[in-house]
Amino acid sequence: MDPVNFDTHPDQYRHWQLSFDGEIARLKMAVDSDHALRPGYELKLNSYDLAVDIELADAIQRIRFEHPEVRTVVFSADIDRVFCSGANIYMLGASTHSFKVNFCKFTNETRLYLEDASANSGIRFLAACKGATAGGGYELALACDEIILVDDGSSTVSFPETPLLAVLPGTGGLTRLVDKRKVRRDRADVFCTLAEGIKGKRAVKWNLVDAVLPKSKFDEGVEARAKELAASVADVPHGPAIELAPLQPRVEDDSFNYRHVSLELQRDKRTATLTVNAPDKAPPTTLDAALAEGADLWALRAFRELDNALLRLRLNEPEIGTVLLRTAGNPEHVIAADKLIADHRETNGLIREIALMQARVLRRVDNTARSFFAVAEQGACFAGIMLELALAADRVYMLEDDDEQVGVWTSVANAGGYPMSNGLTRLHVRFYAEPAQVDKVLSRGAEGMIPTTDADDLGLATVAADDIDFEDELRIAVEERASLSPDALTGMEASLRYPGPETMETKIFGRLSAWQNWIFTRPNATGKTGALTLYGQPERPTFNWTRT
Amino acid sequence: MDPVNFDTHPDQYRHWQLSFDGEIARLKMAVDSDHALRPGYELKLNSYDLAVDIELADAIQRIRFEHPEVRTVVFSADIDRVFCSGANIYMLGASTHSFKVNFCKFTNETRLYLEDASANSGIRFLAACKGATAGGGYELALACDEIILVDDGSSTVSFPETPLLAVLPGTGGLTRLVDKRKVRRDRADVFCTLAEGIKGKRAVKWNLVDAVLPKSKFDEGVEARAKELAASVADVPHGPAIELAPLQPRVEDDSFNYRHVSLELQRDKRTATLTVNAPDKAPPTTLDAALAEGADLWALRAFRELDNALLRLRLNEPEIGTVLLRTAGNPEHVIAADKLIADHRETNGLIREIALMQARVLRRVDNTARSFFAVAEQGACFAGIMLELALAADRVYMLEDDDEQVGVWTSVANAGGYPMSNGLTRLHVRFYAEPAQVDKVLSRGAEGMIPTTDADDLGLATVAADDIDFEDELRIAVEERASLSPDALTGMEASLRYPGPETMETKIFGRLSAWQNWIFTRPNATGKTGALTLYGQPERPTFNWTRT
Repeated sequence: MDPVNFDTHPDQYRHWQLSFDGEIARLKMAVDSDHALRPGYELKLNSYDLAVDIELADAIQRIRFEHPEVRTVVFSADIDRVFCSGANIYMLGASTHSFKVNFCKFTNETRLYLEDASANSGIRFLAACKGATAGGGYELALACDEIILVDDGSSTVSFPETPLLAVLPGTGGLTRLVDKRKVRRDRADVFCTLAEGIKGKRAVKWNLVDAVLPKSKFDEGVEARAKELAASVADVPHGPAIELAPLQPRVEDDSFNYRHVSLELQRDKRTATLTVNAPDKAPPTTLDAALAEGADLWALRAFRELDNALLRLRLNEPEIGTVLLRTAGNPEHVIAADKLIADHRETNGLIREIALMQARVLRRVDNTARSFFAVAEQGACFAGIMLELALAADRVYMLEDDDEQVGVWTSVANAGGYPMSNGLTRLHVRFYAEPAQVDKVLSRGAEGMIPTTDADDLGLATVAADDIDFEDELRIAVEERASLSPDALTGMEASLRYPGPETMETKIFGRLSAWQNWIFTRPNATGKTGALTLYGQPERPTFNWTRT
Repeated sequence: MDPVNFDTHPDQYRHWQLSFDGEIARLKMAVDSDHALRPGYELKLNSYDLAVDIELADAIQRIRFEHPEVRTVVFSADIDRVFCSGANIYMLGASTHSFKVNFCKFTNETRLYLEDASANSGIRFLAACKGATAGGGYELALACDEIILVDDGSSTVSFPETPLLAVLPGTGGLTRLVDKRKVRRDRADVFCTLAEGIKGKRAVKWNLVDAVLPKSKFDEGVEARAKELAASVADVPHGPAIELAPLQPRVEDDSFNYRHVSLELQRDKRTATLTVNAPDKAPPTTLDAALAEGADLWALRAFRELDNALLRLRLNEPEIGTVLLRTAGNPEHVIAADKLIADHRETNGLIREIALMQARVLRRVDNTARSFFAVAEQGACFAGIMLELALAADRVYMLEDDDEQVGVWTSVANAGGYPMSNGLTRLHVRFYAEPAQVDKVLSRGAEGMIPTTDADDLGLATVAADDIDFEDELRIAVEERASLSPDALTGMEASLRYPGPETMETKIFGRLSAWQNWIFTRPNATGKTGALTLYGQPERPTFNWTRT
């Protein structure tokens, strides 16, 4: 099967029409049923697969960078009686478990990015649901700030997953229902078992949607509300606009090479090495100089590349279980790059977007179901935002060299601005038992490089070893890791990476995704006579009635 | 297979030795390998199964009620080199998925009850680990306030589940590691993949245990620490002691009848009716009169019965998917019983224990993976703490009768004192969108009965229907519910029942249990060549390496 490609551009979109009208952007879902990601199913009735969602993620990213004038994004559909019928069921039925889970993770991230843009970038999202809004279609609407449903006597919002498919709505729907829209739990229970959904005034009363409008007044009402929303957003800095240049990695059989990032695969060992390089020259120190670099600015380019590499790894290399995270380059360049971002993110729209994008990519690392071991040897550059990568890793291996060339460096990026999904900094999560240690690390880092021995004393290294032992210790650890059950590791890592508070985002990735994974594996859904398997066929599913 | 019986008594214990010495109680694990719950495996090396844990739960409950003088409970073992080797692996390998999940839920609840007793009843738990403390054995220790490990050069604490069995520690271990003991996440990662575990000073340094003691000083050191702990606990009221009389339900093929509770099974429809009756006479209104009733006090007896019925339902009736919750009796009696508890729970140890026990039973309802529909018809008594049952249900069906005989009643019990696992009252969870509604309900309830129409207006009814429609509406809802996939319902209910904040307890039941359920179903653990299946056999497991 061809690997999934995550690079796209509005000129190439097959499934969305993106248009701009001053402060209002419109994203019209117009799924081309003949251009699914894989052969074997058609994307009828604005159902979607990963190909559709890759375009959506691209569109949201481009709106933030290329169209900073936008204040409201309106979602609508090109079909008259269907807004979106959700993830394509035949695609789900034909997919491997691993693909389903990673598909859902990606779509979850994309929806969280709408909410990120709403919370941090002064953009409001309005779902204009002029027709059936089902399953993942309603989940997309739930990720918007407001939902307007047509009141035509038939159009409903619905979660038919449980009654029709014996699975859960897979894209955060249950969590957003009771946690974001705070729908009363007993009403949520009724709604989630009602295949036909809920329409009209009851949908408003239950807070499933914000308003209903008759068909005759729908377009005009949506337009008016979009303008109101645009006028109501807090006035954060916007722009300047830049164009996101294509990444064009050099793709070889066992490696991807980007400008700043490379991913090398050792498939026979089920491991990979992901290397991020520091800026190769001193980065701009003034805002004007930074803006002149545009999409070439290291902070933006390197993290877009890292994001792309992570996605390829997740979807195209499912058997790579262990990833060595390496870094290289001049730490001073990274610290300077971090400082520029921190100095201007509050006052410049583009710099803020770069910072938010970096934060999203770091959370994508946190949420990637692979074992990450950060490796600091000669030449490594775990500095500032690249130290965040080490803090996101499950373990940190550091070489103790005699001349103290190996170590880590802190920057302003480690003190805040790049929260994990639970809202804490990675240093706070690491030192959850002793918060005072965070300041100790930052104070020590302010004095300069923290060599391995000190880093180990401060609690930053998992394993510190001298050159006699280092290579062996690392090799054995990687071999051992690669020998463990991938399922147990996924559950273990998901449980250990997020001590502390929970947020809607951690609930979605922790609780909801775990239940959904479980249900996807159950014969009642995906067995020979499971509901997902038999969907659309005359046969009725047969269930094992045992409750667990 | 014989149904599981949850009634036991220290005189009948086969696996624990319970002894008392003033303020110190000792629970010595002495598992009788020949008396497993089921044939087919032996409980060697202090490994446990449900039979062992039922005795443990009984012992903790009896300490709280029958031995209120106890300030410290010391866990130890009767074997010299093993504290506890965890859940019996052959038992797990031979069990159905449903049984494994419900076994883990029960053991999780028992461990949370240790923490409940520590937090609320002035009892400290000390794990004296004089030997290998592995898997579920270490999880039991983690539920204690303190862990002392013998420093004999070989005894370790360990979580060998992931490396040896390809599953997760199933009893809250991962969560307690990083959230309760706040072990650094990278150290937790190392620990959880190290089959042989960690011993001595490193175990202390990593905060896996609180102290190590050499073998020669172990017993005396534990003794001294137990006394210190007893002296250090906050001085909450203790006692008086009462004996927990046996419940002795009348068990028939399709029903269990207790004094105040009955459970009727309609197995062909996969439904049950669980009925709780109000006190059949006016309950005592003075503390002395209440104490004179002892274990016969309705508030204690009825909730012990309800607890017992829930456990039988969970473990012995796995195909019963939908439970109608009914109540009957005089609401004034319930309101009076609630008032007595509320008036004296702060100042009397026994009354406090009754309240805490009621709260645990209500959480057992919240955490039971069955669909609960509360049904209020003529004669129903959803009053005070029995209204909590309705609020715990997934839906509430209320009859609108012309003469307004059907309704609900509030009491002091609905205002606090019976929190859900997330720390909120059930009214707060119900009105998560509009907290002011909580006070409205309580104010209206203070005026007297809230008839169905008003209850519906206030948001307490899911469905209110008159006698023409009521029976049909309920019947159809139950039939529809019983037709849905039990797995999807379990995941859906787990996601909808707990909006709002998260606690260690909700993390354990939501996130950790969900991941564990998933892993239990995966071929890498429980398939023909899975690690759990092949444990103890010469063959090595073979894994599908795909990461999800």
